[in-house]
Amino acid sequence: MSQDQEFKQVTESTNAIAYFQQNPYGPNPADYLSNVNNFELIDSTLREGEQFANAFFSTEKKIEIAKALDDFGVDYIELTSPVASEQSRRDCEAICQLGLKAKILTHIRCHMDDAKIAVQTGVDGVDVVIGTSKFLRQYSHGKDMNYIANSAIEVIEYVKSKGIEIRFSSEDSFRSDLVDLLNIYKTVDKVGVNRVGIADTVGCANPRQVYELVRTLKSVVSCDVECHFHNDTGCAIANAYTALEGGAKLIDVSVLGIGERNGITPLGGLMARMIVAAPAYVKSKYKLHKIRDIENLVADAVEVNVPFNNPITGFCAFTHKAGIHAKAILANPSTYEILDPHDFGMTRYIHFANRLTGWNAIKSRVDQLNLKLSDNQVKEVTAKIKRLGDVRSLNIDDVDSIIKDFHAEVVTPQVTVKKVNNDDINLLSIDQPLSKKTRTI
Amino acid sequence: MSQDQEFKQVTESTNAIAYFQQNPYGPNPADYLSNVNNFELIDSTLREGEQFANAFFSTEKKIEIAKALDDFGVDYIELTSPVASEQSRRDCEAICQLGLKAKILTHIRCHMDDAKIAVQTGVDGVDVVIGTSKFLRQYSHGKDMNYIANSAIEVIEYVKSKGIEIRFSSEDSFRSDLVDLLNIYKTVDKVGVNRVGIADTVGCANPRQVYELVRTLKSVVSCDVECHFHNDTGCAIANAYTALEGGAKLIDVSVLGIGERNGITPLGGLMARMIVAAPAYVKSKYKLHKIRDIENLVADAVEVNVPFNNPITGFCAFTHKAGIHAKAILANPSTYEILDPHDFGMTRYIHFANRLTGWNAIKSRVDQLNLKLSDNQVKEVTAKIKRLGDVRSLNIDDVDSIIKDFHAEVVTPQVTVKKVNNDDINLLSIDQPLSKKTRTI
Repeated sequence: MSQDQEFKQVTESTNAIAYFQQNPYGPNPADYLSNVNNFELIDSTLREGEQFANAFFSTEKKIEIAKALDDFGVDYIELTSPVASEQSRRDCEAICQLGLKAKILTHIRCHMDDAKIAVQTGVDGVDVVIGTSKFLRQYSHGKDMNYIANSAIEVIEYVKSKGIEIRFSSEDSFRSDLVDLLNIYKTVDKVGVNRVGIADTVGCANPRQVYELVRTLKSVVSCDVECHFHNDTGCAIANAYTALEGGAKLIDVSVLGIGERNGITPLGGLMARMIVAAPAYVKSKYKLHKIRDIENLVADAVEVNVPFNNPITGFCAFTHKAGIHAKAILANPSTYEILDPHDFGMTRYIHFANRLTGWNAIKSRVDQLNLKLSDNQVKEVTAKIKRLGDVRSLNIDDVDSIIKDFHAEVVTPQVTVKKVNNDDINLLSIDQPLSKKTRTI
Repeated sequence: MSQDQEFKQVTESTNAIAYFQQNPYGPNPADYLSNVNNFELIDSTLREGEQFANAFFSTEKKIEIAKALDDFGVDYIELTSPVASEQSRRDCEAICQLGLKAKILTHIRCHMDDAKIAVQTGVDGVDVVIGTSKFLRQYSHGKDMNYIANSAIEVIEYVKSKGIEIRFSSEDSFRSDLVDLLNIYKTVDKVGVNRVGIADTVGCANPRQVYELVRTLKSVVSCDVECHFHNDTGCAIANAYTALEGGAKLIDVSVLGIGERNGITPLGGLMARMIVAAPAYVKSKYKLHKIRDIENLVADAVEVNVPFNNPITGFCAFTHKAGIHAKAILANPSTYEILDPHDFGMTRYIHFANRLTGWNAIKSRVDQLNLKLSDNQVKEVTAKIKRLGDVRSLNIDDVDSIIKDFHAEVVTPQVTVKKVNNDDINLLSIDQPLSKKTRTI
């Protein structure tokens, strides 16, 4: 295979099968249980996200968010427990009646009281959770593992009898006793849950630990595995990825990751991760160009700014600055970009107005301005730009003025440049005054 | 061992050795090359961070940042190449003359021209980088692997002859041919570099892939391994962690992760990750309570907000909201917190003014207000608070008013409550008017 063909495969997505075979970021062939190419999303913006410090969603806002998530293509939408408050119950019923393609779930404690109220809301499934770590058993609900198993069986059989989906999840799974955990998962799998859940409730599992636990769990149960990762130590996206590698099928996400404390795996960030590993699957299933709108909708609702460094939608996610980066990006965007901004309805930006700029970036700007300069002339004007960039931060107008002035001089060198006064020089120039200089038109 | 003792070990850090032995998030004993307990930080805020879209650092600001990083305890501070611009060279010299504890590095292309200028600045070491992927070899510098090897040897021998440290790094390592990579690393290791670098320049490596590459590289070279991870797909912290597990010794970070595009492994986020795995090492080596100040310093300098969901310093990183979380946190913070906010000079906050609140959180607030209510009374007032929380978002004053009014009623039920007019009722009450009600003092 020639180098050119190889580049084409990585930079273009038309030939998806060849891409998978060649993709260094694709699924690891050794992970025979991997669901990297076959995962599902449970969006919990309206459950976990409601536990975010700033969240207060009106019924109308919940419906708007649910519709946007459904349009994007999430597989499930999880809602706050109907037991949390009377309005929570009514909102749950209202969203169930929207007729969305996504299945609607609600999230309850492992109590028959909660289960009875949940099944009456019209949800497609119930997510049951109970703390299994010694911490939570002692300080939260005070129950032992036998009690947990018996409650779980009662609730699961009841929910199943109503003909809807049921998930059983432990809480704080990574601080639970492994034998206890596998025991209870095996028990509920036999009773016939649709899926079991692993939750890193305190946000501290690490990726290889996640992989190991999921692999082990997959050898014990036959149902699907769902994972929920908090982001306290910044690993929620990576943990979701290694969970899929280990055989988990469903990942809990929320828009911008909002949730308790600093939240969980973010929808947009996980899409950035997954599109690289499974581009054909992700592009065919999810409306990626809607991510920005959904993030803005939720950010407005909870009164936060989209983080400056957010994957995909952060203001600089596709901005290239250093000269050496800009040069290569101009030759081939795949050199320094693994994500194609166009997949998300975004655009690339070459930041050329700074002291780290290089002559390739400036040459590109000269072309955009429809001016003609030789390579040596571009190098000369680049040196001028870098000198001014050493003195202060530059904007595009500054650079364009330097380029246009330089161009005017080299094209019609015979025209006399009018002398300017000291005030003008003071403000801008290392070499010479810029925008106020008389142009040679 | 009793349950109590076990809890004590996880929640208290006084007995560090016992903690390591019990810590479920500690180093994996199977990773015999692990540097999780023995890593070093190369802060690149003044190099990679200068490539952030918004960055323009004056000499004074660079010095302020360098001093803050040195005080925090980073092992190395990496500066922009002195070849980038004249002022970059002068700034590099100025920082070298500060006499900081941290070693000063500068980052150059693999050229003798760059190396000669770099060694004259007074730096303690030079970081050399060259693109080794086919992408960069074709579209950036256009050189083959033999040329790269020869240039590398010349530059390395020259820098070593000046008695300072030298690192050789590939660029875009995860899209480079593995045999090419190992070949060049083996070559430069024999020449005698201090460390070799792996760089995920496009931000897309995944954690297990990182672990494998580092492990393989450690079997080929005897020098230290440094890693540099971009964050385009949200894995920069997790990749740094698995790199350390695999035997890497040094991690490149920047404050808030600023750098090209959406940046690299953030200093604060990595500290959150590492304190959980290696608490004694991290607490003894780094001034963790300075993280917030350093982040604010850099955020101001580059004109961004600290992201709402930033690890440790995000406004809600230690805020607990759902009733079930608040209950357990009040009983024992370790139930839902793996990070102790006090380690970072931060405080915990129980968000009780919302419809997801529970009676344990309200009971705690009643105690704070120095009021006496029975558990049943607290449950009753909690129901009132949840009903108002269904109608609108609440603040602490709202909740305090409800509690105080309720308390006033139950303590002195014989006092007649003054009737209020309809306007008052309209604004606030589901049950009854709140703050304007006549108090029974």
